[in-house]
Amino acid sequence: MSEKIGFVGVGRMGSNMARRLKECGHEIVAVYDVVPKSAEEIARELGASVCTTLAEVTAKSNVIVTVVTDDKSMEKIFNPKGDSLLKGAKGKVFINCATVSPAIHIKVAKLARAAKAASLEACMASSITQAREGTLYLMCGGERATFEKVQPVLESLSSSLKYIGKAGHAATVKALVNLVMNTNTAALAEGLALGHALKLDLAMLREVFSQTGANSRVLQTDGEDMQNREHSCYFSGAHAAKDSGIALDLARQQKLDLPVSNAARRQFDKMVREGIGHLDKSGVAELTFKGRHKAKKSR
Amino acid sequence: MSEKIGFVGVGRMGSNMARRLKECGHEIVAVYDVVPKSAEEIARELGASVCTTLAEVTAKSNVIVTVVTDDKSMEKIFNPKGDSLLKGAKGKVFINCATVSPAIHIKVAKLARAAKAASLEACMASSITQAREGTLYLMCGGERATFEKVQPVLESLSSSLKYIGKAGHAATVKALVNLVMNTNTAALAEGLALGHALKLDLAMLREVFSQTGANSRVLQTDGEDMQNREHSCYFSGAHAAKDSGIALDLARQQKLDLPVSNAARRQFDKMVREGIGHLDKSGVAELTFKGRHKAKKSR
Repeated sequence: MSEKIGFVGVGRMGSNMARRLKECGHEIVAVYDVVPKSAEEIARELGASVCTTLAEVTAKSNVIVTVVTDDKSMEKIFNPKGDSLLKGAKGKVFINCATVSPAIHIKVAKLARAAKAASLEACMASSITQAREGTLYLMCGGERATFEKVQPVLESLSSSLKYIGKAGHAATVKALVNLVMNTNTAALAEGLALGHALKLDLAMLREVFSQTGANSRVLQTDGEDMQNREHSCYFSGAHAAKDSGIALDLARQQKLDLPVSNAARRQFDKMVREGIGHLDKSGVAELTFKGRHKAKKSR
Repeated sequence: MSEKIGFVGVGRMGSNMARRLKECGHEIVAVYDVVPKSAEEIARELGASVCTTLAEVTAKSNVIVTVVTDDKSMEKIFNPKGDSLLKGAKGKVFINCATVSPAIHIKVAKLARAAKAASLEACMASSITQAREGTLYLMCGGERATFEKVQPVLESLSSSLKYIGKAGHAATVKALVNLVMNTNTAALAEGLALGHALKLDLAMLREVFSQTGANSRVLQTDGEDMQNREHSCYFSGAHAAKDSGIALDLARQQKLDLPVSNAARRQFDKMVREGIGHLDKSGVAELTFKGRHKAKKSR
């Protein structure tokens, strides 16, 4: 079944998801972005309309995929007053893909229900290449009926689709995935930095890591990049800071002390503060390797 | 070629290595342990002599395998004065398997050379089961000629034998492996503890971790144990504290700041301080999961 799909937020993830859906036979009818140029480019490429209001996106589409930046952006596009995706949303389905807090997903689910629409969180644990190829790891939260309704769309995007549970739960799991991933990344950067300082052959060290208890997914994805200072962005240090922040806010609400995750979060916060938050998360190695990043003067 | 092998330190690792070597056709001729009962038991089982002095072990053996606790124990058994493995050591080969500091391995290598003996560090990145089965991951440091001389013994112990480089280098790599492994372990404990506090299904959460950027070797080895509070000791929290300490001492000497590894080390130090350092390293989850470990009053 093909759907008329609208997109809100067509950065690198959103635009590649749109391309993939179009390729799979879905119609991309409407595109909206806070950066008009981004919307215009992808709209032209895919034959969609550029919308200047959110309500217009909802009006043109059956299914609206949102890939926005953060909680604040989510509150803005699902604003119950003023221009909003919720206007005329009866019968429409929202698929919300941004990594935002579980609380926002729960709030949006309620607002959508009040507007007689449905919403699903579809949290992605993969990156741009997977978006383009339709091989995202997708964790979904919301009503199961909603999940089943848009399953063909989700399956076009994902080679690994998982229904996690009710609203907020997928976002929680996603935040935990990224919390652990980010900490493993910072830990790896420290291990390699120490090996580098001790003049070990880092290719040999990474090989030993890969065969022992030090092995991890981030060793495979980021280890060589850390060594070679190749930090083209797939998942930025700034995103890592944000996502660890979401998880650690949940921990704080639970009065749970997570000192190691906190230390890692401070490293990603430091990337942002030091002006290198736009680098891939592997760029955390710039902070740990001797003689790489010159720290800004403390303020 | 079978060797006459002596063992110094026959705890769980040492005794299982001795069993394995015997099985492979080597002769276990001499056993020494600071706990006489341990020495007696394994000596009886394997038909070896119990030695009451270190010099006696050297006298009886061609190859002496040492598996002691820490730097201090290494200094004691290779004491240039008094009873020592170095006495009459001409032509003998020491294989030193304990995880101790690279500096001690370098020192012992020099002392052995002065005694016209040879020494090799053989650092194990595996545990008791692998010791018994001869499938240790073994990283060796020292003269290559020494490595080659005892290669048949090493191959009886290891399914994955690696010559890393000169004295001290294998111990350094081993310390880095354990540093990263320990930090990943503490990070995993925090992620699962938060999932537990948020009432997520931890089996589902572990499955998602395993399929995403949160995956790691320690997730496979320790994840379920953390969930089920199954902390039978393979590699204790106390050992984790010691090994991270060795690596972080090296970092300090290099004036390298490794905040995430330090935070993890403090967790393993805390296990020791709180009287649960004898648990497996997975026991770090006892500190992070809500309502598990009651902290001692601060002193």
